[in-house]
This record gives sequence, structure tokens and C-alpha cells, in this order.
Amino acid sequence: MARAWTLTSRPVGLPAADNFALVEMSSAPLADGEVRVRNAWLSVDPYMRGRMNDVKSYVPPFALGEPLTGGAVGIVEESRAEGFAPGDRVLHMLGWRDEAVGSAKEFTKLPATGAPDQMFLGILGMPGVTAYFGLLAVAEAKAGDTVFVSAAAGAVGSAVVQIAKLKGMTVIGSAGGAEKCALVRDLGADAVIDYKAEGPLMKKLKAAAPDGIHVYFDNVGGEHLDAALAMARDNARFAICGMIDSYNSLEPLQLRYAMRMIAARVTLKGFIVTDHFDRLGEFHAEMGAWAAAGKLKAPETVHDGLEATPDAFRALFTGGNTGKMLVRL
Amino acid sequence: MARAWTLTSRPVGLPAADNFALVEMSSAPLADGEVRVRNAWLSVDPYMRGRMNDVKSYVPPFALGEPLTGGAVGIVEESRAEGFAPGDRVLHMLGWRDEAVGSAKEFTKLPATGAPDQMFLGILGMPGVTAYFGLLAVAEAKAGDTVFVSAAAGAVGSAVVQIAKLKGMTVIGSAGGAEKCALVRDLGADAVIDYKAEGPLMKKLKAAAPDGIHVYFDNVGGEHLDAALAMARDNARFAICGMIDSYNSLEPLQLRYAMRMIAARVTLKGFIVTDHFDRLGEFHAEMGAWAAAGKLKAPETVHDGLEATPDAFRALFTGGNTGKMLVRL
Repeated sequence: MARAWTLTSRPVGLPAADNFALVEMSSAPLADGEVRVRNAWLSVDPYMRGRMNDVKSYVPPFALGEPLTGGAVGIVEESRAEGFAPGDRVLHMLGWRDEAVGSAKEFTKLPATGAPDQMFLGILGMPGVTAYFGLLAVAEAKAGDTVFVSAAAGAVGSAVVQIAKLKGMTVIGSAGGAEKCALVRDLGADAVIDYKAEGPLMKKLKAAAPDGIHVYFDNVGGEHLDAALAMARDNARFAICGMIDSYNSLEPLQLRYAMRMIAARVTLKGFIVTDHFDRLGEFHAEMGAWAAAGKLKAPETVHDGLEATPDAFRALFTGGNTGKMLVRL
Repeated sequence: MARAWTLTSRPVGLPAADNFALVEMSSAPLADGEVRVRNAWLSVDPYMRGRMNDVKSYVPPFALGEPLTGGAVGIVEESRAEGFAPGDRVLHMLGWRDEAVGSAKEFTKLPATGAPDQMFLGILGMPGVTAYFGLLAVAEAKAGDTVFVSAAAGAVGSAVVQIAKLKGMTVIGSAGGAEKCALVRDLGADAVIDYKAEGPLMKKLKAAAPDGIHVYFDNVGGEHLDAALAMARDNARFAICGMIDSYNSLEPLQLRYAMRMIAARVTLKGFIVTDHFDRLGEFHAEMGAWAAAGKLKAPETVHDGLEATPDAFRALFTGGNTGKMLVRL
């Protein structure tokens, strides 16, 4: 019997285990044009937290009592659709469940690159696309720029660090704790800030970038955004990708250095990865070549079994992942 | 004996009367290339508050014990410089004093437009330039856009309202109190919000712009910026011109709707008027034509006498001005 996670109640603050329930799904025969997929890897991502609120946003909220959705890769078990055959490896959005059934247009066959399948949920997938266009298109970062990136050991941040280095930038990454900081250094960052270590973040950033920063890639908001404003060079560009500090917070964002926006003529741009899907070809060409040349690392944290999915998701907000957070079925 | 205002101590929070002292200046004979001007109008502007802090910014801090500076217009009394003769009306930055002495390059002769001299300290001067390029170049506002502007009865805001209307935009202006709101309506705004009236600002903005805003021209920061984020349409552009709510505040800026930056892909751009001085020709051509056609109003609040200058300045932060705040000598 196929099983899926549903949202039973909307979290207030940090999601709790009892906001979720694992339910059995009846397995209907496939209709014409449909595909049945055995999921192998599920993605859990910070953006899903926003969909758990009953607020209209760029994606509609999750419905209570319905199976949750999210990125996943799996193997086709059964197909009544042209172009799909049992054994095909596919990428799709019917995650949070062990078996995915849907019309063929919901599934994309993975290219035969030799890269591990789950990389298409990470640096070769949505987090990688977010990093690539956030850095290069939104923040317009270029060779020679000093780039500050928060959550630099996370799925998006670890891709930002690598892309920035491959493009000739100086990179300062922030992460929490010695292990994550070691990873960020290993990814090529020129300087690493442990935001959990003693002392104000602003001073640590000033020590790492005494002449200030040209670009900030924000995954965090809060104190990181404030420190970046404090250290912004004239005409600095900030790509505002996420504010994980605020996703579960009922408190407002507090900025002591907001007025630096004016003095330093900072541009802050919020963006959504899907806005850049018309340029996916550029991403696949450049990142595919780097991956084939062995130039990309894909750190990951893996939880095992469908049962572990909510815990993996909740751990995103307490620093529980180094690299991409994944559930292996 | 010529007199000038000096800064005796740096204000903490709202400037106090005893942060300033009126001192006598010795009147030396003019050197070659110098001009002596009897000031007629002094400008006081919110940006001067930033210069009273001992913080490096886009303009250096005022030095303690030295005469303060700022926009002024006056009449040439004596000239040892080519191109200037007694009786010439000039614009310059040696304000906060009754007599200005400097080299000829510090003075600009006013054009003979028939406009009152003090308009060159307001809508035809720095505040007008700020409004014009902030709206049209920084926020890229265009006909059909719904534009929200805070401090809409102020020197910059009242210019934004008029330029936006002349360019075919829908304008919502916020101001404090019935008198200022009546002025904003009189300037042509389609809707006016009294932010001092009962009820949350966000609800008032939602009532005025149920479909949201394309552009926000920020003179205020604080709750106004937050409400604008809450009501931002997709791809909204915010010109961040000033944050008068914060100039005297020791508290951080608080934003409950910061994450709207991401969901609505908002671009916030801080700017400084001087960055656009290379395009002053466009401003003078278009605004000069509107002024000549009687299409621009120049509301002003006038304090009389050099002695009143610090009070006029301090009143900027307590809503004491409708239109441009001026001191008439």
C-alpha cells in the first residue's frame, strides 16, 4: 500500500512532529497517459515552510489533509504514457510519498550524465538553479567581486560558493559550527565565518572583508542581512533568496543598518527561482560541463526511510543539514 | 557683523536647541576670484541630520565648532570674480549664515524664469531633482503605475506627487493630519492616507490600493516601508530616498513583511540625488517647461530670521513643515 505524508494542522513557529501524518493511499489503476513511479529520493527544502501557512504567496499553500508535494527522483514502475518505460529515472514534484502517480507531463527523465540521481535535487536541480541565477542574474556578480553568502554550507549556499569561485570571485561564506565551516572552506571559500562562534557577526564580516562586499547572497535574513548592509560597498547588489531566520519567527526582521541602503546605494532584489526557468539551457550547459569535469561537489545529509521525512524537514531550521537535505527511500 | 550657526555638540536622537550656537564671523576683505553674498533664503533638509553624526557617509560629517552648510539663495553684494556682479541672484551651499563668502565656483546664478527664488531650494532644486530621478530613474515608474509616496506633503514628496500625476500615474500619498492631507489632494493625488488617523497604516493602504502598488517612493522607512512591502505587486520597485522615521531613532528598523521581498520579487534601491547630476539637463528641460506653464505648485513653510534656523531644522522631524521648509532672512 502506497503511503504519503499529509499536513494535519498548520505550524505556528517551528513545525512540530504532530503537524504531519503518514496516511495510506489507495492504488488506482493507471489512466491513459499516466505513469507510476517508485520514489528513491525525496527533497525537503526551506521554501516548503511558507506553503504550510495559509497565506497566498508565489505558490499556493498546502491543503490540510492532502499529500504534501516536493521535489523527488524515482524509477518508473509502470507506464501508460508514450516516452516512459519501466526503469526510467525521473525527476518530479510528487514527493513526500513512496509512490508517485501522475500524467506524463509531470515527470522529466534524468539525463544520462553519470552524476548520482540525487544531484538533480541539489546542485544540478532547483537549489543549483537558484544559486546560479541568483548570483549571476539577480545580483549581477562578476569576476573580481567580493561575495558574501549566508547558509554557505546549505544546499543553495554550497552551490553559490562553488559557482562564485569558478567565476573568479572572492567568496566569504557564513555557516554555523566547525564542521560546516570546514566544508565551506573545502568548497573553495576564501574566508569562512562561524556565525555561532562568540562575537558579533558584523565584526567577523568586517575582519573577513575589510574593504566591504560587492554582493550579498541572502539565504538567512536577520542579523546576516544587517551585517551585509553594514559592510556594503557603494552600489552593492543583494540577491534576497531566503530568510530562514524568519520562516518560523513571529518577530519582525530588525535592521540596525537599514540606512546604509541609501548611503551606499544598495540594491536589494527578491527573487524566485522559477522566474529564471526560461534560461535553464544556460544553467544546464555551464553546470553540466563543470559537473562532467569533476569541478562540482555535492555535499548532502541523508535521512533514511519515508517515516523520517518530517524530521528531515524540521531539521532544516535547526542547522541539521550540511549540504542538501535528502530522504532516501 | 556676519553671523553663522555652528554645531556645538552631536545630537543623540532628536536634535536639541543647545546642540547649536550662533557665532559672529570676522568679515575679511575678498580675495581675487571671490564673491560676497547676502543670503535671502536658507534651506533646512532632513539629510543634514545624518551629517550631524560622527559617521562617514556619502557626505562627510559636519565638524564641531565650524559653520554649518546647506542650500541657500542670496544676492551678490560684492564681487572680485568674473561673471558675478552686485545684484546677481545666486544658489549655493553656504547656508546656515547671513553672509556667504567663497570662490566663484561655489555659486550658480539663478536663471531668469520668473519663478520665485526660493523654488530653487525646493521643487526646482535639490528636492525636485531627488523626486524626479528617484521616481523616473531609480523606481522606473511609468504611466499607468500605481505609486505610493510617503511624506507626500514634504519637499520631496510633494514634488513626487506632482511629477507622477503629470506622467500619467495613479498616486497614493501619505501625510500626517488633515491640513497636510488636503494639500496632497490639492497637488493631484488620487488617494490620500492620513497616517496619524486611527487604524493600521497597512489597512489604509490596502483600502487605497486594493490591487497593490507598482512603485513605492520611500521618504520615511519604518511602518510605511513595511506597509508598502505588504501591498507590493509582483516586481514592484521601491526607491529608498530617506528614512526620516529612523534619523533620530536608536531603535532598529522593524519589518514584519520583509519576506514579501521574495514572494513579490520586490527591488529596493537606495539612492543619492548627486548620483543623477549628470542628467540635470533632462530635469531642467522638463520641470522648467512645467513650471513655465504653471503646472507646478511649490508649497512652503517659512520661518523668519537667521535665529530661527535650528528650530526650523528641528521641526522637520516633528511634522512641522508642509511643503519645503525655508528660513527667510
